[in-house]
Amino acid sequence: MSSPQPPAPGPEALVSRLSAEELKERVLSLAGPADQALEQTLRSHVPFIEEVSDYIIFSGGKRLRPVLYLLAAAAAGGQGRPRHAAIFEFLHAATLLHDDVVDEAGRRRGRPAARTRYGNDAVILVGDFLFSKSYSLAAEVADHRFVSALTDCTTIMAEGQVLELLHTGDLELSPARYQEIIVSKTAVLIAAACQMGAIYAGADQKTVKSLYDYGLALGIAFQMVDDALDYVGSEHEFGKPVGHDLAEGKITLPFIEVRDQAPAEVRHRLLELARAIPQDPGVIPQAKELVRARGGVEHTFAQARAHALAAQQALIPLLGPGEPAPEMETLLELAPYVVTRRT
Amino acid sequence: MSSPQPPAPGPEALVSRLSAEELKERVLSLAGPADQALEQTLRSHVPFIEEVSDYIIFSGGKRLRPVLYLLAAAAAGGQGRPRHAAIFEFLHAATLLHDDVVDEAGRRRGRPAARTRYGNDAVILVGDFLFSKSYSLAAEVADHRFVSALTDCTTIMAEGQVLELLHTGDLELSPARYQEIIVSKTAVLIAAACQMGAIYAGADQKTVKSLYDYGLALGIAFQMVDDALDYVGSEHEFGKPVGHDLAEGKITLPFIEVRDQAPAEVRHRLLELARAIPQDPGVIPQAKELVRARGGVEHTFAQARAHALAAQQALIPLLGPGEPAPEMETLLELAPYVVTRRT
Repeated sequence: MSSPQPPAPGPEALVSRLSAEELKERVLSLAGPADQALEQTLRSHVPFIEEVSDYIIFSGGKRLRPVLYLLAAAAAGGQGRPRHAAIFEFLHAATLLHDDVVDEAGRRRGRPAARTRYGNDAVILVGDFLFSKSYSLAAEVADHRFVSALTDCTTIMAEGQVLELLHTGDLELSPARYQEIIVSKTAVLIAAACQMGAIYAGADQKTVKSLYDYGLALGIAFQMVDDALDYVGSEHEFGKPVGHDLAEGKITLPFIEVRDQAPAEVRHRLLELARAIPQDPGVIPQAKELVRARGGVEHTFAQARAHALAAQQALIPLLGPGEPAPEMETLLELAPYVVTRRT
Repeated sequence: MSSPQPPAPGPEALVSRLSAEELKERVLSLAGPADQALEQTLRSHVPFIEEVSDYIIFSGGKRLRPVLYLLAAAAAGGQGRPRHAAIFEFLHAATLLHDDVVDEAGRRRGRPAARTRYGNDAVILVGDFLFSKSYSLAAEVADHRFVSALTDCTTIMAEGQVLELLHTGDLELSPARYQEIIVSKTAVLIAAACQMGAIYAGADQKTVKSLYDYGLALGIAFQMVDDALDYVGSEHEFGKPVGHDLAEGKITLPFIEVRDQAPAEVRHRLLELARAIPQDPGVIPQAKELVRARGGVEHTFAQARAHALAAQQALIPLLGPGEPAPEMETLLELAPYVVTRRT
């Protein structure tokens, strides 16, 4: 299958001052301690739980959420502990485990999904364990807002997952409902990581809110790029089969854009292909090609860039007159990174 | 199928001062407000989540856990809010939803299990929502020990569920491992309800510990009775098919007792029947009959009575010189109730 490159984001919107290498180095310097904390924190007297948890957690995740937690704490003038950064990776892993059962996913990050290796039953229960572990870690922090921010977040996440499930195969999914789904299933956790970093740092309400808004916008951009890449990447690049969203009946922005903006005959053709997928998954490449050819992917990247820009703008109230502190700079730089990443 | 009555517990161990009617009235006077709080608290902007949650929560549960929370708070000299009592019913419902998926249960409380009505995917995600809702409510309470007690509890619960899964079909399950499973999957939540009631009341550490110990012993007794009833009750009485534990490969105390205490030829016969079940569920009645005839059920009730007695004894340090307060009396009386209940 051909794997055309997605359009690069325009330089007008987001300016990078760091090279890709410099940014990577900064992120890795925080991902390392987060990884160590994950290993130390992930203890259970049931060895099987550790095995399944290890399988999902140490499978090449980018540690985006723990890194954002640590960066936000530093940008807010404090210092987060890698132990609490682990909260966000545990939560993320728990939702991946449950998602894979719901989606009947066969692969994840380039290898068999945990459920195909350990069974649905085990991954449901180990997911529950990881949820619980996250809350345990959050409950250690004396500032009451800390654990409340987490529970508010996970309640919305669960609602988002249910919404997504209810709209499976809904070819008429509205752009507003799509946005609601990606905000709740993806963006609120990224927002909570940033918000809780600021809370841990003892920041004032304005700073906490700015970092929350940053995380929310960044999370929306992140998910939109994910949804765009599903229409363009190859499995080799992306670690999981692409075109999977369509196969699973997930209607995302690239599809919605073409459905709503293209001429009637294109819309008709796209819906015809989409309706045929459940019986004949062989038409997926045609549907993908139509979405790409009609600018659905391009439009989605443009939307993602707009949200990445909004993420940067959310930080403006926190910038002083001089050069931003390195952690603040890294947060700013992650916005263009998120919309240029190709895996 | 015949449905022999289990042996009644001996009067030597546990003395009831209240009539069954009086006890029921006291419990219902707390279950009512707990029910109202459940309805008020269970709000989601996704109507489907409310529907599935309602289906599992308002299906005739006994509200044992919320009632124990409110009783413990009062016995510890304070007053619990029904809003927080809801925590324990939400958690319980969440575990039932996930359990039913793991067990592939068809029925629950005399009607189709939620998963057969709404699908596995929906009940996994609504279970996650209910977990999250419990933590949200717990995080409202300023005393830091409150939410920590809950997260400690749910971490152990998840471990217990995994242990139970790992020992599915393990005909050699040891009595010690059986006890570990029922403590973690059932008793720690009942213990946490009592403990958190005491914490909410602002009780000292000794009182908190006594009420925790009470709940733990009561929970063990409760689960043992459940496991015994699975060998004796009829579906009509019990709301779910009986003999289900054997059908699901769950080895419980009545079986373990006969396996370990009966003469070799009985043990041999029992294991033979148990091994045949996966291919031929028709032998379940024979296996049940053998367990009953060899005293497995009687032994289990005796063990349950011993734990119920331990529950009462855990409260002794909290009793003053005069008559116990009504809520303390109700806690004491619930111990004999738990081991004489037949549904």
